[in-house]
Parts: sequence; structure tokens; C-alpha cells
Amino acid sequence: MPEDREVTIYDIARYLNISAATVSRGLKNNPMISKNTRKKIAEAAKSLGYQSNTFASSLRSRHTHTLGVLVPRLNSHFMSSALAGMENAANRHGYNLIIAQSLEDVEKEKRNAATMFNKRVDGLLISLSYNTQDIHHLEPFFKRKIPVVFFDRVYPHDESTSVGINNQEAAYNITKHLISQGCRKIMHLGGNLLRNVYQERLAGYRKALEDHHLPFSKKLYLTGPLSEQAGADAARYILDLPAEERPDAVFSANDTAAVYCMLTLKTAGLRIPEDIAFAGFNNDPISRVIEPNLTTMDYSGDSIGNTAATYLINHLKGISNLYTTNAITLRADMVIRASSLKNKLP
Amino acid sequence: MPEDREVTIYDIARYLNISAATVSRGLKNNPMISKNTRKKIAEAAKSLGYQSNTFASSLRSRHTHTLGVLVPRLNSHFMSSALAGMENAANRHGYNLIIAQSLEDVEKEKRNAATMFNKRVDGLLISLSYNTQDIHHLEPFFKRKIPVVFFDRVYPHDESTSVGINNQEAAYNITKHLISQGCRKIMHLGGNLLRNVYQERLAGYRKALEDHHLPFSKKLYLTGPLSEQAGADAARYILDLPAEERPDAVFSANDTAAVYCMLTLKTAGLRIPEDIAFAGFNNDPISRVIEPNLTTMDYSGDSIGNTAATYLINHLKGISNLYTTNAITLRADMVIRASSLKNKLP
Repeated sequence: MPEDREVTIYDIARYLNISAATVSRGLKNNPMISKNTRKKIAEAAKSLGYQSNTFASSLRSRHTHTLGVLVPRLNSHFMSSALAGMENAANRHGYNLIIAQSLEDVEKEKRNAATMFNKRVDGLLISLSYNTQDIHHLEPFFKRKIPVVFFDRVYPHDESTSVGINNQEAAYNITKHLISQGCRKIMHLGGNLLRNVYQERLAGYRKALEDHHLPFSKKLYLTGPLSEQAGADAARYILDLPAEERPDAVFSANDTAAVYCMLTLKTAGLRIPEDIAFAGFNNDPISRVIEPNLTTMDYSGDSIGNTAATYLINHLKGISNLYTTNAITLRADMVIRASSLKNKLP
Repeated sequence: MPEDREVTIYDIARYLNISAATVSRGLKNNPMISKNTRKKIAEAAKSLGYQSNTFASSLRSRHTHTLGVLVPRLNSHFMSSALAGMENAANRHGYNLIIAQSLEDVEKEKRNAATMFNKRVDGLLISLSYNTQDIHHLEPFFKRKIPVVFFDRVYPHDESTSVGINNQEAAYNITKHLISQGCRKIMHLGGNLLRNVYQERLAGYRKALEDHHLPFSKKLYLTGPLSEQAGADAARYILDLPAEERPDAVFSANDTAAVYCMLTLKTAGLRIPEDIAFAGFNNDPISRVIEPNLTTMDYSGDSIGNTAATYLINHLKGISNLYTTNAITLRADMVIRASSLKNKLP
């Protein structure tokens, strides 16, 4: 296809602003060309990734060496770390990344997917928007066997792989930790259940309650955008409850809502963790600045991004086969900090 | 050039996995094609940006509609906001972004620039790495009249434009604010002077001291990577000074170093702002979580990214001319918070 281009002597000539004939001679170490120019040509050939091997050239001839990356928002701590991890892997293997954000809007996600398809990306890395219901917009990729890797906000599909963590287990463990600290009325701040990550965190929370014979109460389960505002609103909701109905702990599905809930409750005079313990999710920078520091789940965007991109590239290179792997589950580590330590460490 | 591709009926056929003949008929609203299929074809044509106008096609024929973005690190709050702003502008105008990070290493920056050139980006958006000394590696772009826009960490060059804020004025104002609060021994935590942003912030700090007849003391000027560790180290440096030599305020060139300096000093028992006032730079999320909240300079990555990309695209479209503009300076607003308020508001 025309989009794939092997680096040629014309590219080197264009890059150095000299003639192709000079480049050709320089690459053959022809003494007609000054030593200095030959050095420049050799350096440029290396920088641009020039390959004189025509066999290698034909092998690659249907590839653009470009990966598409579709994310909900570029400007979250988690997503920028994931992108940094992908860039690292892609750069190491000679791939480029084209990026686009859906701004949590499925219609924009559809348009972005069409653009990536049309740009003839070799593969797609995608984390779904808040309100995506299905993945029909990815059908053109599946039909053409353009590999798709989901990361973080994933979707089950036979012909793609998902990279993420075990959200249910993580939420189970963090809820269990709160229970071990003597908490019995644990509130959960969750996100949109269309997204697996929030569905699984809710399931883990409920399972932990159940296993410890604690009731699940709808009054102690709030869903929303998990924003700063949502955190502050949750605090006001808690303060409005009769004292005997107030939760003694909050497990939030992200750190942002946890931190802004804490700040509002602190201003109202509640003590953390004595009156109400807190746990978040993500290990964002703010979790180490809030006082007391926030117990959270460390969940490296960098590793997820790096793993997803490496896996996609390995598939493209024929080193591994994406169609035989359903999911890659990475480690998530609970980081216990002062916000949840009512007793000693469990 | 082969890299530029107008969307054709073959692209639509490939996208829908149907024949080009069917697409051609569908676009002509031929009743031989089912209504449902015609609808699908029309939608795909819209999504992919199909243009039947061949004149438009020839006008665009040397363009890839791709912009290269080179940044020091993808995973900082400022940079991810800038990227989000660029993506917004690019998406609105039908451009794609290819991204790469230098990880603050000039050698990687050089390789990334060569890759972008070779990918035939229509233009380049770049923020320089920590140790970049000159911009010889951008010469291929200048020679080929591929427009280059610097943002944030800029470099003066006749044939490009810089987008940023007036760092000197901002630093001057924030230092003046600390002086207005009664501070007389103001420490500055700065970054590498190779980068204009840190050089200009130092200059603004020094100018404010001078205008208020306060001496500049080398003992109260530390430079470093402005990391969490650098912030904590600065705190230990302060604590090791004899009491009478300690600063009564710190102006840090970023929020990260300011916040980690504050946390360490607080643990050592110093009161903020009573014993030592604080001001940072960037208005990162952590500045609104640290207690007391940090006075800082609000400096929107989103606007800088959006402006830089829009400006570059307008140049490519012939709406404005990049070669006649040296610099675009955006607003930066001082955000006064409790960390610097020793008196009432000035």
C-alpha cells in the first residue's frame, strides 16, 4: 500500500538537502565524497532507519509502523502514564503512535476509530469511553485482521486481548482491609457500570462485605463521574445522614473523589481515620499529598501501556499470537497509608 | 507523495468489507443497492472524510494531515494537558498527532525529530528536553519549510514561533507578592538554566529582589531537577542552616518541589506560612491538596497546546503566517492561597 514507505536514499537526500547521487556514493564510501559528508550521510541513514536490504523491505511492505491509540482523556495521571509506557515500547521497536481522545463521548470514539482505520495503523490500542455500549465501530479492524488490544477499560472480544488488572480482587482486598480495621459501614463511591473496571470494583466490594457477613446498603453506594465535585458532593451526602447512619469508611473507585471527599469532611471537623477511614484507587500523586496520606491501589499506567504496546508489536512481528490470548492481568499492589489505619497494620 | 492519501471509494469498500462497485453505486444513490447499505455507505463516507471533489484532492496532495509532537515527558500534568489541548485543535481541523517523548535526553530528541521528518509530518510542535543545547537537529524542517512551533520550553529562531507565557513577569509578580507579605529572605528553587523557562523565572525573581532593595544570596538559590526528592532535599538544606540564615519564604519554579519541601518542613515542625511562606508554579492538582493550599502560577497547558496547534494549522491552511510572528504570549494568573498569606491579601 502507498502508506508504507521504506526509507530510501531519496529520503536521506531530502533530509540532508543534498543530491540522491551524493547519498548513493556516500553510502558506498566513494572517496569522491568528502569524509565529512560521508559521515553525515551515514549518521542520517542510521537516524532515519535506512535499510539497504530489499528482502526486509518487501517483508514490511504492507506496514505503516504506526499504532493507533484511542483513550478517553489524555490529561489524567493514569492515562498519561499509560501513554508514556506505550511510547517507550513503540519507540524501542521503531513504531510511531498516533493518538486521539474521545473525551468520554462514544460518537467521538467512533469517528476516531474510523480515522485510525483510514490512516492504516498496523494495530490499535484502545481504552473505552464512559458511555460506549458496544464495539461495532471496531468491526472494520476485526474484519481486516488489524489487531486490537484493549487496556484498562476493556471489552470481551474473541479476536482481541485485554490488558489490565484484576479489579475485583483489588477491590475485595481493599474492602477486606477496611473491615480488618474495624469498619462495618463501608461506603462505596463507584463509576459507570458500563465500564468493566467500575463493575468489577463494585463486585469485589460486595463480595468482601458478603464474606464478612456485612449487609450491602444502597444508601452507602453512590455512583457518578468520580470527579473532584463528585467527591465533595459525597461528603455533603455523608454529613446530611443521621449520625447513626453515617459510614465509618469510604472506599472510592478513584483517588480524586476520595481526596475531595476527605478535604470536605475535614473542613466539617471529621477526623480521618478515627471518625471515617478512607481508601482510594490509582495511587495518583495527590494520594501522597493529602493528610493523612491515602490508602490506595497502586496500578501502574506505565506498565499497562508498555505491556499492551509490546504485546501488540510482538503480534505484528509474529513473535506471539494475540488471537490465542484473552487477557493479560498485571499486578496491583495495595498501598496502606494513614487514612485507613484505625488499628495497627493487619 | 505516496504518504498523502485522499479518501477513495476503495477505502470505503475496505472499511465496510464490500466491493468498490457497490460503494460507487451507493454513493450515487443507485436503487440497485439496498437502502440500508446506502445508509451504511453514506455514514462510512462521512466518518472517513470522503470528498468527491477532485480539485480539493489535488490541493491537498502534498499533505499528510499529520502533526508531529515532541515533548520531554508525556506523564507530567502540564504536558498531558498541553497534549489534550493539541488533540482538541487537531481533531477539530482534521489533523492527526504523532507523538514522541525525549525523556529529557537530547540524543533521543534528535532521533525523534528525524523520525518525524521521515514520517513527513506537515508541521512540528516541540518542547525541548532538559539538556538540549542547540537546535541543529531541526534544520531539515527549516530547510524544507516544514513549520515548527515551539511551546513552553522554547528556542529563539527566525523561522518559527514560540508559544508560552511571560515567565519573567510571572516570577517577578509572585516574588513581589511574597515581599508584600513581609518576607525578606526569599529562597528560589530553580531548574536548568539551559531552558528559557527557568532562566526567565530566575531573572524575574532577581529583578523583584533588586527593585525592593533586597540582596540576592547564592545561599538562597538552589537548582536541580525540581522533583519530589529535590523538594525534600531543599527542606533538609533549610533545616541545616543556622536559624538566623533560614529563608522566610520559598519560591519554587514548580509545584512538585514546593509541595515536597513543605511536607518535609511540616514534619520537622515548621509552620507554613508563619515560619516560612511558600509559592510554586504550574497550578498542578497537588497544589490544591497540600495544606495549607499552595500559592502558585496558573499556567494552562491546555491553552498553550491548543494555541500552538491551532496556530500551526492556520499557517498550513494559509490563514496566518508563522514566519512573521516571533512569539505568542498567553496569560498566566497568580493564584494566591494560604501558603503565602502571612498578612491579609495585599
